[in-house]
Amino acid sequence: MDPSDFRRDGYALVDWIAEYLEHSDRFPVLARVVPGEIVAALPEDAPEDPESFGAIMADFERVLVPGLTHWNHPSFFAYFAITGSAPGALADFLSAALNQQAMLWATSPAATELEAVTLGWLRRLIGLPDAFEGVIYDTASISTLHALGAAREAAVPDVRTRGLARSDIPPLRVYCSQEAHSSVDKAVIALGLGHHALSRVAVDDQFRMRPDALADAVRSDRLRGCLPLAVVASVGTTSTTSIDPLPAIADVCGDERLWLHVDAAYGGAAAILPSHAHILDGAARADSLVVNPHKWLFTPFDLSAFYCRRMDVLRAAFAFVPDYLRQSAAASSASQGPSGALHGTGNLMDTGVQLGRRFRALKLWFVLRSFGVRAMRAHLARHLDLAQQFASWVDAHPDFERLAPIPLSVVCFRWKPATDTLTPVQIDQANEQLLAAVNQTGQAYLSHTRIRGRFAIRMAIGHLRTEERHVRQAWDLLCHLSRQLTNK
Amino acid sequence: MDPSDFRRDGYALVDWIAEYLEHSDRFPVLARVVPGEIVAALPEDAPEDPESFGAIMADFERVLVPGLTHWNHPSFFAYFAITGSAPGALADFLSAALNQQAMLWATSPAATELEAVTLGWLRRLIGLPDAFEGVIYDTASISTLHALGAAREAAVPDVRTRGLARSDIPPLRVYCSQEAHSSVDKAVIALGLGHHALSRVAVDDQFRMRPDALADAVRSDRLRGCLPLAVVASVGTTSTTSIDPLPAIADVCGDERLWLHVDAAYGGAAAILPSHAHILDGAARADSLVVNPHKWLFTPFDLSAFYCRRMDVLRAAFAFVPDYLRQSAAASSASQGPSGALHGTGNLMDTGVQLGRRFRALKLWFVLRSFGVRAMRAHLARHLDLAQQFASWVDAHPDFERLAPIPLSVVCFRWKPATDTLTPVQIDQANEQLLAAVNQTGQAYLSHTRIRGRFAIRMAIGHLRTEERHVRQAWDLLCHLSRQLTNK
Repeated sequence: MDPSDFRRDGYALVDWIAEYLEHSDRFPVLARVVPGEIVAALPEDAPEDPESFGAIMADFERVLVPGLTHWNHPSFFAYFAITGSAPGALADFLSAALNQQAMLWATSPAATELEAVTLGWLRRLIGLPDAFEGVIYDTASISTLHALGAAREAAVPDVRTRGLARSDIPPLRVYCSQEAHSSVDKAVIALGLGHHALSRVAVDDQFRMRPDALADAVRSDRLRGCLPLAVVASVGTTSTTSIDPLPAIADVCGDERLWLHVDAAYGGAAAILPSHAHILDGAARADSLVVNPHKWLFTPFDLSAFYCRRMDVLRAAFAFVPDYLRQSAAASSASQGPSGALHGTGNLMDTGVQLGRRFRALKLWFVLRSFGVRAMRAHLARHLDLAQQFASWVDAHPDFERLAPIPLSVVCFRWKPATDTLTPVQIDQANEQLLAAVNQTGQAYLSHTRIRGRFAIRMAIGHLRTEERHVRQAWDLLCHLSRQLTNK
Repeated sequence: MDPSDFRRDGYALVDWIAEYLEHSDRFPVLARVVPGEIVAALPEDAPEDPESFGAIMADFERVLVPGLTHWNHPSFFAYFAITGSAPGALADFLSAALNQQAMLWATSPAATELEAVTLGWLRRLIGLPDAFEGVIYDTASISTLHALGAAREAAVPDVRTRGLARSDIPPLRVYCSQEAHSSVDKAVIALGLGHHALSRVAVDDQFRMRPDALADAVRSDRLRGCLPLAVVASVGTTSTTSIDPLPAIADVCGDERLWLHVDAAYGGAAAILPSHAHILDGAARADSLVVNPHKWLFTPFDLSAFYCRRMDVLRAAFAFVPDYLRQSAAASSASQGPSGALHGTGNLMDTGVQLGRRFRALKLWFVLRSFGVRAMRAHLARHLDLAQQFASWVDAHPDFERLAPIPLSVVCFRWKPATDTLTPVQIDQANEQLLAAVNQTGQAYLSHTRIRGRFAIRMAIGHLRTEERHVRQAWDLLCHLSRQLTNK
């Protein structure tokens, strides 16, 4: 691609994206293609000869755009609403062109040090002490995998060299609440602890881990001869965004010498608001914490911020330096700096499984500077308000029922007609139909969960451009389509 | 950012990147900052108020650009040379703006199905049978982790639920050559097998795994009561790009019923050339294979293509579906398709640890179509020729010595003056100094390895815009600076 073509095609792409970011709401939120439609519409083989950018974009619009579910749509209310913001997209473009590999400090001092700088910014914004060193991973799943890998390293002698398949290790135990994310399950499976090693601790009536139940579980496991390793506490669970009581959980972890990992992937962002800083009370006593700027901080996927007070343990678990990556004595001593521990000058490859690392910090830097902290706080406050507002409509409606408190920006509810006498199974089915009907309109996209066994509709508010009118429209759709349901 | 600002700033960024892609060679390849310099130059806190794109870009140019090591420079010859190409960067920009999450088919049919399409294209280009299903991960390290996780699942009963910490599992064994990549070490550590579970098999005089030594190792481990799980064969090792004899290794794996994973992260790309298709002979009998388009196929980092003939085993190892991600019966049956196994319509979250997945296939699609296969082959052929040419200069020079054959595009060599009587340690030191001196010029960047204990300089050719003049310049520098070394 010669530079003049690149300029022409690049401008055209900027125009397309500008239009998209402003008017993504002209698309149906949920894709309308049928499975296999896209595969069938594309050739089976790569072309022999070059094709123009225009031809590729034409196919993109014709074949792929109908197959997009628009996560960047202001009426995307499913899972957790996220935002590919304009400054974040620009930074990711620059990052792709620079193609940095921040495995060693020397292979990208800029990416390595900007990672330290931006994670320092975020750490102070959410009120974590400076003792927490940060590293960027792709996803919270990988962050939690590393946290529990470090916990394993801390608790099991010689696990790095000798592994777990040996007779001198008692059954291992990791604890999280019944509401914790599936990434904890995947991490214990991947690390070889086995899914049965995960103990799901009971929650209270607000879906928060019960510290007394945790303490009981640990005690009883020790009596049975098990070795407890770690607790994963959640600040913002996926179903209901419940917030585990970190101070009491930290007490248990302190008493029992367990690694405390805080999964604040979604909820941690709210701690940048003075009104919500308390949700991370107690996190300073954790060993590690994950918060995802790609969730509620307007940063395009993927950027998961992992903080650890014992990064030396993580490095002991995972660092491995072959000859072809070993730096000369001169380079190493330089990168250690005079004090031996200069901030942001380590080799990021030592903090995990992945060797290659994109220049992800660039987009966090662009986003935080382009928005400024004041505006980010205002956006989050708006989302929190909108969730309360939506909840008030649910609460006021005789045929809808709220199913959980709203500590953050997600509302769990269901349709439950006051006058009807449906069985629990029929109510579940009706809500499943209602959700499908709403999503099929293309005007909003919500997802679901199960709460105490009941089908619940989830309304997750968090997109940059979501305004009251979008929330109102979703509510109107729910009301309207639920009436049709009754009349069937 | 309003649309007119975005257009203005986007055009400016396109201009910057156009200039960069054309003239990255006006920068020193290796960054010249000292450790801590970037951290010191940036504020400790995020700004309260928004800053303009222009202000951020000015800081980028002032503070960060001097801290870049230019992986996108035609004289980058370290590690493996990679390319953030123009079409790939444009596609990544679009991907960031779309912000797709391909965890379920429904959450991004376009990303899910385009992943199947583009991986199908690549699979046919490198000559793997259609029985290999593909999935995109971020890195080869994560691909290999999943491969060995699947091997563990296949070999150890109930490992998913019961883990490894129990008395009924014999010591586990994984095999790779002495030259295999450190990602294998990290994978066995992460999976809880322990580093001692990794058996490094001897290589022949061309640094290829010896199948007889592999067979001996497996037999003797079985006699000792160990449980062999898997073999990782390399097509293009990191030090010397040696190619393990896949057919003979596949024989051993077939006899011993071991999972065969092929690490072709770098080398696999060469199989798109008819002249080099044979390097994957035998790969059709492997269980899994990884090739990284972000290495030698002009795709910006990160995009690792993982192929597996037994994806059901991988899914059995890692799939876990909580309520909030469970699709309705209707949606699931639709996405299964009439046959129950419609190509490209599964849920990608089931194939690994990571839940969230970027729309990475988009950049591979743009790159393959923009270049066309013919041109990609021509670029790779040029790199292979340039490596031979460089090697011929080394071979012809009395004071340089080549240290390994050149099956692909990397040349390992050292300075070894014919007339001098230096000790082995002095020769190593002199080469370390020579390498540092070359890299300090900023005109080329090479890395090193150790070959049979000796310090070796590595010249890795693979950047899109690397031409003979860049290779020639690096060679001239080496000759010139080695003479200075002699005169000291």
